[in-house]
Amino acid sequence: MLRLSAPLLDKVYFPSDLRKLSEIDLPQLADELRTEMIDAVSMTGGHLGAGLGVVELTIALHYIFNTPYDRLIWDVGHQAYPHKILTGRRDRIRTLRQEEGLSGFTKRTESEYDPFGAGHSSTSISAGLGMVIAGKLTQEKRKVISVIGDGAMSAGMAYEAMNNVGALNARLLVILNDNDMSIAPPTGAMSAYLARLVSSPVYRSLREHIKLLSRKWPKFFSDKARQSEEYARVFFTGGTLFEELGFYYIGPIDGHNFNHLLPVLKNVRDWAQGPVLIHVVTCKGKGYPPAESADDKYHGVNRFDVITGKQIKPQSKTPSYTKVFASALIEEAYHDRRIIAITAAMPSGTGLDLFAERFPRRMFDVGIAEQHAITFAAGLASEGLKPFVAIYSTFLQRGYDQIVHDVSIQKLPVRFAIDRAGFVGADGSTHAGSFDTGFLTALPGFVVMAAADNLELMHMVCTAAAYDEGPLSFRYPRGEGIDIDLPQRGEILSIGKGRIVCEGNKVAILSFGTRLYEALAAADELELIGLSTTVADARFAKPLDEELVVRLAHDHEMLITIEEGATNGFGAQVLQFLATRGLLDRGLKIRTLVLPDIYLNHGSQDKVLDRVGLGRSGIVKTVLAAMDREIMTLP
Amino acid sequence: MLRLSAPLLDKVYFPSDLRKLSEIDLPQLADELRTEMIDAVSMTGGHLGAGLGVVELTIALHYIFNTPYDRLIWDVGHQAYPHKILTGRRDRIRTLRQEEGLSGFTKRTESEYDPFGAGHSSTSISAGLGMVIAGKLTQEKRKVISVIGDGAMSAGMAYEAMNNVGALNARLLVILNDNDMSIAPPTGAMSAYLARLVSSPVYRSLREHIKLLSRKWPKFFSDKARQSEEYARVFFTGGTLFEELGFYYIGPIDGHNFNHLLPVLKNVRDWAQGPVLIHVVTCKGKGYPPAESADDKYHGVNRFDVITGKQIKPQSKTPSYTKVFASALIEEAYHDRRIIAITAAMPSGTGLDLFAERFPRRMFDVGIAEQHAITFAAGLASEGLKPFVAIYSTFLQRGYDQIVHDVSIQKLPVRFAIDRAGFVGADGSTHAGSFDTGFLTALPGFVVMAAADNLELMHMVCTAAAYDEGPLSFRYPRGEGIDIDLPQRGEILSIGKGRIVCEGNKVAILSFGTRLYEALAAADELELIGLSTTVADARFAKPLDEELVVRLAHDHEMLITIEEGATNGFGAQVLQFLATRGLLDRGLKIRTLVLPDIYLNHGSQDKVLDRVGLGRSGIVKTVLAAMDREIMTLP
Repeated sequence: MLRLSAPLLDKVYFPSDLRKLSEIDLPQLADELRTEMIDAVSMTGGHLGAGLGVVELTIALHYIFNTPYDRLIWDVGHQAYPHKILTGRRDRIRTLRQEEGLSGFTKRTESEYDPFGAGHSSTSISAGLGMVIAGKLTQEKRKVISVIGDGAMSAGMAYEAMNNVGALNARLLVILNDNDMSIAPPTGAMSAYLARLVSSPVYRSLREHIKLLSRKWPKFFSDKARQSEEYARVFFTGGTLFEELGFYYIGPIDGHNFNHLLPVLKNVRDWAQGPVLIHVVTCKGKGYPPAESADDKYHGVNRFDVITGKQIKPQSKTPSYTKVFASALIEEAYHDRRIIAITAAMPSGTGLDLFAERFPRRMFDVGIAEQHAITFAAGLASEGLKPFVAIYSTFLQRGYDQIVHDVSIQKLPVRFAIDRAGFVGADGSTHAGSFDTGFLTALPGFVVMAAADNLELMHMVCTAAAYDEGPLSFRYPRGEGIDIDLPQRGEILSIGKGRIVCEGNKVAILSFGTRLYEALAAADELELIGLSTTVADARFAKPLDEELVVRLAHDHEMLITIEEGATNGFGAQVLQFLATRGLLDRGLKIRTLVLPDIYLNHGSQDKVLDRVGLGRSGIVKTVLAAMDREIMTLP
Repeated sequence: MLRLSAPLLDKVYFPSDLRKLSEIDLPQLADELRTEMIDAVSMTGGHLGAGLGVVELTIALHYIFNTPYDRLIWDVGHQAYPHKILTGRRDRIRTLRQEEGLSGFTKRTESEYDPFGAGHSSTSISAGLGMVIAGKLTQEKRKVISVIGDGAMSAGMAYEAMNNVGALNARLLVILNDNDMSIAPPTGAMSAYLARLVSSPVYRSLREHIKLLSRKWPKFFSDKARQSEEYARVFFTGGTLFEELGFYYIGPIDGHNFNHLLPVLKNVRDWAQGPVLIHVVTCKGKGYPPAESADDKYHGVNRFDVITGKQIKPQSKTPSYTKVFASALIEEAYHDRRIIAITAAMPSGTGLDLFAERFPRRMFDVGIAEQHAITFAAGLASEGLKPFVAIYSTFLQRGYDQIVHDVSIQKLPVRFAIDRAGFVGADGSTHAGSFDTGFLTALPGFVVMAAADNLELMHMVCTAAAYDEGPLSFRYPRGEGIDIDLPQRGEILSIGKGRIVCEGNKVAILSFGTRLYEALAAADELELIGLSTTVADARFAKPLDEELVVRLAHDHEMLITIEEGATNGFGAQVLQFLATRGLLDRGLKIRTLVLPDIYLNHGSQDKVLDRVGLGRSGIVKTVLAAMDREIMTLP
């Protein structure tokens, strides 16, 4: 199976090398590129299926267009590994997603061939339009191509952008990379011929005579008995929808066939005047049998064995936070029929696929549509149901206005289960969950929690199910927590009450979230050097446990808060409370440990958190610095 | 012109009374309702044109549907005044938008006839879907109707929602209230007949035979010479687009004609199984000649004279912040061709209509599409242009993820001109600009400014034009600033540097934004009682002027920060800095004055800000309380 050499790929360092190849060499180059990519991802893990699906498309785009002068934007960036290999980064491809290595997404700072970074979906058309308009205003003749998946098309942002592209009649090429498993398989010579026909210069000049042509088109299909009705629907109605928005629609064409891709792209490059959408059908995981036959087409994988396709999953005795959340919610849902679960296109990432197995009628996957997800939940809550929106912290940002305007102002009891809160490891800065505590605690009446461990997470799910007075959130990080016995069901926590985990009298550490265990480790170390330390778990950033904060401030020389989030979060809440109450008037050694004020690159969670001072040693260091300074300045 | 009595309206306190009337009475009721509304808004000011356009639709909906059991959701809520009059609120309609009076929008706490509050656009389909699903799960047979304008349809959120409604085949009725001036005038008997036909039970049973019918439809149009091509396009392609998304499309029909509205609504009520969209064409400002003939159809008005239509504009010598921003940006744009202005459907609200007059090719109105607006700007910035996104603080929330992911992480120099920052007066809580300072200062590398007055605003526009290192924002409130001489052009401020406005030695007030003048007034008062007070204008919340903060903390007994924003904003930044530096260790009387942690209802800006402690007297009170406590506890 595996090719040992890659004679063509070895010659291609940059797209300019690629363009020297003959068209008939491209299929072999595709094979070599595919093999290289499989081999690399087998070592690093990452997004495999999406990249395999666009090997031919990537080659064709760089072959036809003059990148990097022409701008090629990969939506989400999952599928950009082949692009990276062809644009001067092959030598580093086995550092993908490793600390100091290549990013798993496109990134402007990484290459001039990445004109726009992406990690969240559906941004490419907006960004592309900006580039087209900029080109027009600066009289650059460059072409701009946005490659966007069919899933990403469900996001409102893509629609907003298409609406605007159409209104401006901007010369943007959108490639709709359609790998939806539900649609008909790739399309054969006839449709590719049709697509070539409608994109050819000859046809362009005939475009006015649309009626004539529309009489022609149905004939092709009725003549072809094998043409399924479903496919006809996609061709016409899909096209019509895009035409409504002002796009010239071409497709669908076979995204794995250079004989179809190259002429269409060439025609569009040379003849298009306004917005064009090429509907390309690809197979996720294409060319790697284990991926093709897997349900998820190896969307995101761990390291794996190339021959067998078997993934090397790290052993863990403890369940992930995601799993614990899902089990706890399922348990609550048995007790309360009003509980509804909502995800925006992340059923497996959020664990709600498990919920859906038990309660298929009570789980809603609304697509990549965070704004809608939240107001939909608000609508459910307004009728007395108990919606849980399970969402990654970073994607919650997409629905901030809906949280404010539709949920919070109306005091509707929507529950937000915020997964991937904090630093997320290999996915890097675009996926870090840094800001949720800050932007939620700013909202009047919001109950904002963070789980310190799996057991606490169970309690919070239970509390969320029971609390019906207004909006509520609880956050938990990526990965696994500590090994801890879990009961069948969580307990209802008292709203706005934290807990003291261990008692001391010199230093107090008030933790919000899973850093609690680092705080406890630090306390042990501080005890050894004579600094008796209290450790408390705040549980709530809002409402704040004021009694607890006052007590910690009064009874200790130093108070330190810690959280896995940006500035303006839990620590800010504590400070503002203390200031308002005058509890800083006569002095308190207070420090708020938060994520540093930079965007952290990808890397291992523990290592990075340690490095930025949110681990045991960072806590100890902060305490000692504050105490030492005092000693040195006293006499 | 004016009717002196309202015999029918006088009988209608609630929709149940309305339903007792005969159909032939409804046109007269509409006249009376229209007159009542004009009279009320002439006294209160508010949104006039939108309400006048839906008088018949409002009556028809309450007449046909069983509100409040059936849920009627008005998107944005601008157009809900007639609805309020018919649902038990006529006696309070002249308190609209006044303190303690009716809200200018729908509001759940105001009436059971308002099942969902709205002030921002495009939320109604999502909320409605939530209610449909809730009804299904709780076995309530209620109908749900979402009324949404054609403008609101440009928002991605509406598309996300339609996508989901279609996928779930939910029984939701969407009324597309189409009052776009650019489309053909209302549609006449034939199209209404067509619409009645397609929505009739007879037709429903024929629906499978779509081909037959589709052969029929074009004939109607080709037969009618007067039928403009534009209109035909709307009818078919509009319908097709909604059909793509799974809606049964009916229309367009005349939204001012009960003979068209009632049978269609009745048919849909009784026969619809899945999603239906009725495309209703209305005239904004209908029935009030001054509104009908005005360019903006009296969208938002001050108090006015009913006979002449002349608005009573409050006299002001000073220009609004909005105007100053626009003039300053125009001035900068003359000096720098790379400056581009972007608005999301608010050209006049943001002052960019003035910019567009001078630079039509450099102003982009992208529609109600905040997400797209911001990433579009990022695309422009990535190519070296200088985009200014002018946007209200409250709508900026719609694009938060795009700010984080597309602008901030990529360090792209997009400039955000944040209008309506702070409490906004009559528009109330849905439009308050409370959270921007918090959610922006949390972002690494963001430059966050607030203008203290018009002159400072000019400087900030100039600074924003000059600064090209990364994202930047400046905020300014609704209304007019103090009377102050303005130069032709602003000056470039030093990034991260504040300024001392007056010097004292006991108390320091550090202001961020326009509260500066209240701080100065407070300082005068404090001087009189022997508390010598320094007042400083921070200008920047990020990067913070650390030198200034240290100096104020060191040289004064008390430091007070003030801003027109929520918790977690400027004050939090100051506190976190002081804590990190150990400057609270030995005591500092510090207080952070912010908006209170509740959603403030509508009311006069000055009065409300005074009441919540952000005026002169509130500042003085805070200082005295802190100082007194000290005096009392000393001996």
